[in-house]
Amino acid sequence: MTEFIPVGTRFVDLPAAFPMRRGCTLHGGRVAYETWGTLSAARDNGVLILTGLSPDAHAASNDANAEPGWWEAMVGPGKPIDTNRWFLICVNSLGSCKGSTGPASINPTTGEPYRLDFPELSVEDGADAAAHVVRALGIEQLACVIGNSMGGMVSLAFLLRHPGSARTHINISGAARALPFSIAIRSLQREAIRLDPNWNNGRYSDETYPESGMRMARKLGVITYRSALEWDGRFGRVRLDSDRADGDPFGLEFEVESYLEAHARRFVRRFDPNCYLYLSRSMDWFDLGDYCRESHGNHDADARGGLSLIRVERALSIGVHTDILFPLQQQEEIASGLAAGGADARFLPLESPQGHDAFLVDIQRFGPAVRDFLAAL
Amino acid sequence: MTEFIPVGTRFVDLPAAFPMRRGCTLHGGRVAYETWGTLSAARDNGVLILTGLSPDAHAASNDANAEPGWWEAMVGPGKPIDTNRWFLICVNSLGSCKGSTGPASINPTTGEPYRLDFPELSVEDGADAAAHVVRALGIEQLACVIGNSMGGMVSLAFLLRHPGSARTHINISGAARALPFSIAIRSLQREAIRLDPNWNNGRYSDETYPESGMRMARKLGVITYRSALEWDGRFGRVRLDSDRADGDPFGLEFEVESYLEAHARRFVRRFDPNCYLYLSRSMDWFDLGDYCRESHGNHDADARGGLSLIRVERALSIGVHTDILFPLQQQEEIASGLAAGGADARFLPLESPQGHDAFLVDIQRFGPAVRDFLAAL
Repeated sequence: MTEFIPVGTRFVDLPAAFPMRRGCTLHGGRVAYETWGTLSAARDNGVLILTGLSPDAHAASNDANAEPGWWEAMVGPGKPIDTNRWFLICVNSLGSCKGSTGPASINPTTGEPYRLDFPELSVEDGADAAAHVVRALGIEQLACVIGNSMGGMVSLAFLLRHPGSARTHINISGAARALPFSIAIRSLQREAIRLDPNWNNGRYSDETYPESGMRMARKLGVITYRSALEWDGRFGRVRLDSDRADGDPFGLEFEVESYLEAHARRFVRRFDPNCYLYLSRSMDWFDLGDYCRESHGNHDADARGGLSLIRVERALSIGVHTDILFPLQQQEEIASGLAAGGADARFLPLESPQGHDAFLVDIQRFGPAVRDFLAAL
Repeated sequence: MTEFIPVGTRFVDLPAAFPMRRGCTLHGGRVAYETWGTLSAARDNGVLILTGLSPDAHAASNDANAEPGWWEAMVGPGKPIDTNRWFLICVNSLGSCKGSTGPASINPTTGEPYRLDFPELSVEDGADAAAHVVRALGIEQLACVIGNSMGGMVSLAFLLRHPGSARTHINISGAARALPFSIAIRSLQREAIRLDPNWNNGRYSDETYPESGMRMARKLGVITYRSALEWDGRFGRVRLDSDRADGDPFGLEFEVESYLEAHARRFVRRFDPNCYLYLSRSMDWFDLGDYCRESHGNHDADARGGLSLIRVERALSIGVHTDILFPLQQQEEIASGLAAGGADARFLPLESPQGHDAFLVDIQRFGPAVRDFLAAL
């Protein structure tokens, strides 16, 4: 069990007993975060980034860690999220293995890693944990909360459960509920990990590690994060040079297979398998309509009903045509649902060929969209 | 090693030494087929169906086998493929385990199943085997060849390698070359099978059978054969009744997961894993442009160049918007490539929500399209 914590990560302790949505309590938890820029005297320039499943809090290089971050092109002085103006916070998701408490962390009750004894984790718990960080930093109201992918889900839960905590919102390739197609893909990823004999019901070690299962899960992830269109231009039908082929009659032959293999190899030992299972399942469980049903007794409420209960001044929901995991209708639903709640909400479909992960790479399209929204605040 | 041969299947022996595209020779092979209707005195009403990866030759009930077939709604007297008028032939793919010779068949040299000693199989070999069946039935020229999915690839190879063998062509959700996205998915399916310790380099038995690997491969197949749109309407976020859940914290919870599990369970013991590997890989290798490069010395030729060498009078290429495995541009490419070769070729995109497999279920849209094309011949 290993956690992967970037240099310079800071931490906020959660309350000693942190109540979780599905009924359990997390004891002695913490949330990892990084910041960029300076909080204004009025404390009104805070911007929060909530991430996808796998990133850590190191969105970009900063004083504490000069290494480029996972959103380096978007975050920094003069960049689309301009840290000359904004005090930017990025938190590592609760349940992750990159500094925030999760299944790979030590359970203070036993002195051993939680593994599958970690409490059932929901997207809403991640939202509550992030809200705790924002308050701990002395911010009552953020200028904006930005959520990508899973972070788009967490953002919506954050805004619904913590009214008034942000004036505006940018939702990127997010969703107000998990669709069955995406559930099916994540379920299969989890099954690949669980089928690996080395997973051993969560009791693996560095020596007997579910590497095959993680490799399968990651490859399926990468396939669904990108798009057929992009890959045709990028890889076509190019074969590996014969000296790179492995001689196995069913082994790697095409460049695209080698690309997947390289992606998977980079990932499998850098993300804890149990944390992956917990975060993946939390996304399947997410449906903003649950909030209405549970808190407002509205049994017919759906995700759109949940969206219409969110109060922000302005919102931007961005998606891409080629996203098969969080399809474009889901970003359209977010914009129209937030508009129904009174926000000046805009839906922005982009023509990025890169699929779900476009926000990480298609800075040419995402950069101006985010820059313009923030500049107008 | 088991073959699964429907009642009433008939066989044509291949030549004692059948040359295969990638250099080997198949000895003592055979092809399974079924027929419907009556061959006219002029032998000019023959129609050939070439199938996707997994179906057998039993496309519909007939005199030899009253069981409904895999395309029952499309094939029969008065149906879109009207067997009152057409003499219909459906062949089981070479390399399959449903009657035609493949890796699960007995190698006459050893008296044991071929397993991985089966020669390297290409789409072109399946086309040549089908052409042999057509000739053996006394047909010089088919009225039409119809190919679905992988059968769409086989059809194009058939028409290119056997000029004059068909007057017209219907290509359904097919492709003139494998795209890297589809290669990636199939590569992952094969990896799931190969990672199963019971696969044992192809030397499994009924007792030690790569059931987990086949289950993973099939689930990934089903996911990519359908679409997010269809599943949202069909499953939404409906949970299993608590008495159907299995108590495992990461076990089946949503209806969509149960649907996948049921699909996989039906498949895993009904299709030979080695045959699956061979047929899957043959699709990755397919690129109609190879023919131009190899046979015409045209080093710059691509799939479209291959298509333009096909000579048919009329053609119809049908695809659906929601197909992520053989995306719609591929069917458009087929129509335009065949038109460049002089055919009266039409591209018909359909709004089916069911994705790649729509042709099996959306008879409301596919039925009239196929019926009208054949009726006008």
